[in-house]
Amino acid sequence: MQQATILTGDRPTGPLHIGHYVGSLRQRVEAQHHYRQFVMIADQQALTDNGHQPEKVAGNVLEVMADYLAAGLDPSLTTFCLQSALPALPELTAYYLNLVSVARLERNPTVKAEIQQKGFARSLPAGFLTYPVSQAADITAFRASHVPVGEDQLPMLEQTNEIVRRFNSLVGQPVLTECQPILGAQGRLPGIDGQAKMSKSLGNTITLGMEADALRQAVFAMYTDPHHLRVSDPGRVEGNTVFTYLDAFHPDHALVAELKAHYQRGGLGDTRCKQILNDCLQTLLAPMRARRQAALAERGELLALLRRGSEQARELTGSVLGDVKRAMGLDYFG
Amino acid sequence: MQQATILTGDRPTGPLHIGHYVGSLRQRVEAQHHYRQFVMIADQQALTDNGHQPEKVAGNVLEVMADYLAAGLDPSLTTFCLQSALPALPELTAYYLNLVSVARLERNPTVKAEIQQKGFARSLPAGFLTYPVSQAADITAFRASHVPVGEDQLPMLEQTNEIVRRFNSLVGQPVLTECQPILGAQGRLPGIDGQAKMSKSLGNTITLGMEADALRQAVFAMYTDPHHLRVSDPGRVEGNTVFTYLDAFHPDHALVAELKAHYQRGGLGDTRCKQILNDCLQTLLAPMRARRQAALAERGELLALLRRGSEQARELTGSVLGDVKRAMGLDYFG
Repeated sequence: MQQATILTGDRPTGPLHIGHYVGSLRQRVEAQHHYRQFVMIADQQALTDNGHQPEKVAGNVLEVMADYLAAGLDPSLTTFCLQSALPALPELTAYYLNLVSVARLERNPTVKAEIQQKGFARSLPAGFLTYPVSQAADITAFRASHVPVGEDQLPMLEQTNEIVRRFNSLVGQPVLTECQPILGAQGRLPGIDGQAKMSKSLGNTITLGMEADALRQAVFAMYTDPHHLRVSDPGRVEGNTVFTYLDAFHPDHALVAELKAHYQRGGLGDTRCKQILNDCLQTLLAPMRARRQAALAERGELLALLRRGSEQARELTGSVLGDVKRAMGLDYFG
Repeated sequence: MQQATILTGDRPTGPLHIGHYVGSLRQRVEAQHHYRQFVMIADQQALTDNGHQPEKVAGNVLEVMADYLAAGLDPSLTTFCLQSALPALPELTAYYLNLVSVARLERNPTVKAEIQQKGFARSLPAGFLTYPVSQAADITAFRASHVPVGEDQLPMLEQTNEIVRRFNSLVGQPVLTECQPILGAQGRLPGIDGQAKMSKSLGNTITLGMEADALRQAVFAMYTDPHHLRVSDPGRVEGNTVFTYLDAFHPDHALVAELKAHYQRGGLGDTRCKQILNDCLQTLLAPMRARRQAALAERGELLALLRRGSEQARELTGSVLGDVKRAMGLDYFG
């Protein structure tokens, strides 16, 4: 039986932050012990909505690699690879594009929401409309059985499995493998300003490599309950970013529950809560920062690591492409 | 200075016919003496509207190769290659898709007309909508300076040159080369039934490999002037397929002009005209049929010829892809 395989990854559009850590990196560090795990830096996909800033994408590839090592991904357990180093992916995409209608792509709820969010309208790049097909190529090329996603990404896996079924039925053989989601337990971490999205452009992130001083400042600038004016006042913990973060990061759940109760009945100040959160995040990030710096001090080695993984991935994805072409009869040269 | 380079080719969806001969093959036989010429069998593009019949596409690759040799293309002057053997093409397509809007693709007049003609409507495959981008990848990957096209294909070259200019301006270097059309003097040859389109499914073609008896039958079944009932009647030469073919194929233009005048004033029978056309086409096709049979008798050699050409094309297109990725900064591994 084939080993359960995870494909996951990130678009290299900026350094990773603690939102990525709770949302995906932490799970990957765990998963690498139980699955064959490929982590792909999706530079080609990043270009689908950064087509006019290739230098931004290219410039972040090694940053993201450093973040992976920082977060605790282990190169002996996880294979890192680079999307643009895998020519089988766009070739599979080309074949799959013939099996999906434009109408079907326009119905994709994730793409629809993203089109609105990014304000594309008539200027929608063709590569953006078709990126779910390119994702299907990624997933199937690795024979991924499991793909960690958020709820909002489920339509992507449906699209992938639709293509898998259509292709297999077309050629009358089970050439491609369907995948299933691993749904994250953790919802999306808000920015330090309480906004729903942590993003570099909003300046509300805590990156994995943030220096201790900056981290402390970020925590003490954090959004809490605006009506909690005096320490003695009762405060709200819902929508209070400090408590959202304590829930996400503090290992001592009993302590967090106690703090919440105290805050709600009054008598616990924001400063005290922020101190506790700061301690917790400093403890979490200190070793990450160190690993990140060490990784970036040896850029040549970091690049070589990505290259070796990409070579392995190239072999695997190339063999799946070979199966696909053989099944279609497009293997003239053997 | 770079040598003037032609890229041209065919979708392998059936054996080639004399419509292809007058429309393109004849010009290629001439052009191979003056240009560096690549002739690509576009199996991937054929799949954009034959996605559910890959076996039809795969089954016609060697047929088309045999037709090329039959028509007089010379492997020492023309390089034959296979689209699906050139991974640089779909990868370039992936990058270019980010530089073209969906709205722009939907405005393409050629694609619009073809969508209507093929009756796609809501079931339009994404690969069909985006095939002009894939053509831009083909043309630019070969650094083609010249592309032979019909009037109806000019929008494809405009789309290509738009992508070239957008990419070059994006990276601030003239990485890609614009192309110009070589417009065919000859319009489209009608089917033997007088229909505008010669097509295998309509059963109105004369293939390059047609046997002598079948060719004679096809010529004598040909559509003429339905009102030209008696030899002595004046006849029409406009829309009369026999005269359209004589114009296209007969080397003696003075004779054809004389026949037309005679036919128009009356006294020249269809049978006599068809005999002259039959003689002319038998003379044209006899050596083609012989070359075609010889080529197909050695399928291994034919395949090896395609493979060698594809390897050369792979090197060239790979180097252009390398230039494109380098210009975008996506050349991490050197």
